[in-house]
Amino acid sequence: MELVRTKDEVRRAVAGRRAGEKIIGLVPTMGGFHEGHLTLMRLCAGRAGFTVASLFVNPIQFGPGEDLESYPRHEQRDRELAAGAGVDLLFAPAVDEMYAPGCSTFVEETELGQGLCGASRPGHFRGVTTVVTKLLNIVQPDLAVFGRKDLQQLMVIRRMVRDLDFPVEIIEGPLVREPDGLAMSSRNVYLDESRRAAAPGMYAVLMRAAAQIAGGQRQISAALAAAREEIERKTGGRLEYLEALDNELAAADEAAGCAYLAAALQLGATRLIDNVRVPPGGSGDGPDG
Amino acid sequence: MELVRTKDEVRRAVAGRRAGEKIIGLVPTMGGFHEGHLTLMRLCAGRAGFTVASLFVNPIQFGPGEDLESYPRHEQRDRELAAGAGVDLLFAPAVDEMYAPGCSTFVEETELGQGLCGASRPGHFRGVTTVVTKLLNIVQPDLAVFGRKDLQQLMVIRRMVRDLDFPVEIIEGPLVREPDGLAMSSRNVYLDESRRAAAPGMYAVLMRAAAQIAGGQRQISAALAAAREEIERKTGGRLEYLEALDNELAAADEAAGCAYLAAALQLGATRLIDNVRVPPGGSGDGPDG
Repeated sequence: MELVRTKDEVRRAVAGRRAGEKIIGLVPTMGGFHEGHLTLMRLCAGRAGFTVASLFVNPIQFGPGEDLESYPRHEQRDRELAAGAGVDLLFAPAVDEMYAPGCSTFVEETELGQGLCGASRPGHFRGVTTVVTKLLNIVQPDLAVFGRKDLQQLMVIRRMVRDLDFPVEIIEGPLVREPDGLAMSSRNVYLDESRRAAAPGMYAVLMRAAAQIAGGQRQISAALAAAREEIERKTGGRLEYLEALDNELAAADEAAGCAYLAAALQLGATRLIDNVRVPPGGSGDGPDG
Repeated sequence: MELVRTKDEVRRAVAGRRAGEKIIGLVPTMGGFHEGHLTLMRLCAGRAGFTVASLFVNPIQFGPGEDLESYPRHEQRDRELAAGAGVDLLFAPAVDEMYAPGCSTFVEETELGQGLCGASRPGHFRGVTTVVTKLLNIVQPDLAVFGRKDLQQLMVIRRMVRDLDFPVEIIEGPLVREPDGLAMSSRNVYLDESRRAAAPGMYAVLMRAAAQIAGGQRQISAALAAAREEIERKTGGRLEYLEALDNELAAADEAAGCAYLAAALQLGATRLIDNVRVPPGGSGDGPDG
């Protein structure tokens, strides 16, 4: 695996592989690699002849008071893990390589990114769509992989690619869980022992609510109300949201059909997100991913 | 010259030429072709092995009350002119081919697009940057040509390409004038006879003011004040703005250096823009273009 720091090096490396008619794949990441990231990389490497992963903690997707400074950075470890997961080129630029002084252009999805995480993180998805646009333009991949853990991000990116006609296929990667059901996240390392032990309670409640809704035992609104109370009681955290969503991320009701339950939980200083499909089952809806 | 209506046809046509190692060039237009457009096309065809022109009156760059409905549409004539100017592929999509129902993603340059035309046309440059992003993603050209007539648009597009890392070279095309000095514009056809006769007064005054500033005979502020009064008197129009600008479109003062004078004039129901370099001279600063 090659490590590069500049856009020019990426363009040169990719151009050679493209001329050799290899399929180019991209996995955008912020590092702090865990099995979730590695699963996306392996998925990409299985589809592409040349897999690029980016490792860039993107400042413009963090708001004031968020964890930009403390976000886990372990580049040496990440390099070894990426190489083992089939990445051919790791692009780890400095902030001033990615953003020219006085940069003033942004990409914004104005609908799917407004609610859920977007409501409490203004500017977050604008930062995501802007940096992903840049990465798509630098790498020019044939396909790019985004994990279902960040469900809203995945939907926003799919919408952006459709609306702006990016010539890339967006592939959904699975949500990978710890053996006790906690969704893997680079932010899980922030949890102290007791909160780490309580955190999987969110997933257990989401799964039961999803089964109740799918089986028709409970109305969506009743299932959500009970699940909200139970998650906060079990985890000791404060729910930022817990919503039933259709396939377009709109609020689901009985008629429209519920496709996902999605939640954000503030647990101490740590913000955790999770989602399960309705009906539960399939990738990401069991502890084994 | 081939005429196509769909993005897929463009992609297929361009892919074949790219595989043949041809340089791909793009000239985005809204039709109503005059010698200004044709000059950009010839310039592009001279640099590229395969020249694509788009012909699309982009609704999202028009504001309420602007001339979206009345904008000149003469496709048959435009086809013949484009073919004669070296265009290989003319992409003339319908609105619903370009914009999917429920499209919600926009590209916005937040600095250079704010003043001048952006001040009176909120959302205009957001519409331009969004449609140009789409065209760049559909055609994936090596180079794209934008005329200096739309100076602010050229600067906004250059900034967008830099900020978002589009793999394309932006080429400035000359500003082409009628024999009497009026900058060519698709909107000139809106002018009645007396206003058409008065309109070149703006250019004559701009040139004299540019010469005075460059020669040091007048301070910038004094030259602008005199020119504002004279343009309105000579043309019978109302100036929306007349500004002295540096190379980054910021207001120029004696110390910073003036690179352009740029103006927008409301003449009856018609809005005309123009600009000259300081010092005057070179492409676009004489009646012969």
